[in-house]
Amino acid sequence: MSDKSTIEEGLVLAPKFDADGLVTCVVTDARNGDLLMVAHMNAEALKRTVATGEAWYFSRSRKALWKKGESSGHTQRVVEMRVDCDQDAVWIKVEQHGAGACHTGRRSCFYRMVPLRQTGAVALEFRDAEKAFDPNTVYGKK
Amino acid sequence: MSDKSTIEEGLVLAPKFDADGLVTCVVTDARNGDLLMVAHMNAEALKRTVATGEAWYFSRSRKALWKKGESSGHTQRVVEMRVDCDQDAVWIKVEQHGAGACHTGRRSCFYRMVPLRQTGAVALEFRDAEKAFDPNTVYGKK
Repeated sequence: MSDKSTIEEGLVLAPKFDADGLVTCVVTDARNGDLLMVAHMNAEALKRTVATGEAWYFSRSRKALWKKGESSGHTQRVVEMRVDCDQDAVWIKVEQHGAGACHTGRRSCFYRMVPLRQTGAVALEFRDAEKAFDPNTVYGKK
Repeated sequence: MSDKSTIEEGLVLAPKFDADGLVTCVVTDARNGDLLMVAHMNAEALKRTVATGEAWYFSRSRKALWKKGESSGHTQRVVEMRVDCDQDAVWIKVEQHGAGACHTGRRSCFYRMVPLRQTGAVALEFRDAEKAFDPNTVYGKK
């Protein structure tokens, strides 16, 4: 098989990390399929997630390995992991522990809708945007 | 509000494009919530998707704007679009026309499972990997 066939049709996990050493990670709620967040994993985060079944990520802003919930207590137990055709993205279905996945206090990061079939300025609309927890309390901000 | 608050709590669509001018796009099946693919949008792809309600992407490998289905006929009608907290990712729920979203012939790009809670070499396992169409026929490869 060509390299492309090996990556797409083979059974060896061979992640295609980008120039920053990351793959994209899509995180859905195992309970209902909702999209909770999109994050990134470097090789170490991926390895720890596979080994432990708990979600680990790499923060691009903080440039640091990060166990989900290490500050908030809102950890994620991975129920299933999949990899995509070209192995530059993984999908994890998680049991979200605690109130939510989003640092703003919502269950999901995707709490605003973009209206479609219009041109010009777009006004977002809140959807499922009620806060599940108070981020100032959870993250101890002053 | 600070810039961070405006981006996270405001109702203005202000996508945070990366160094390559892209945001991540998560594509799920509006019918059953399954993750179909992860792609990228540049400003023009995002604008066209919002304006037309049909999915447009930017191909990182071909470095080209790309209407989903322009080669395969397997277009995607966007039922709902959302944006995440820091506006560097969008989520579209689509009606997938034609047999599938993946260029390998599957309905979804995520047709291999990564076994969890193990160390060492990982052997992927096929899941929902039956081909929905013949890519050689659809894409006219020799």
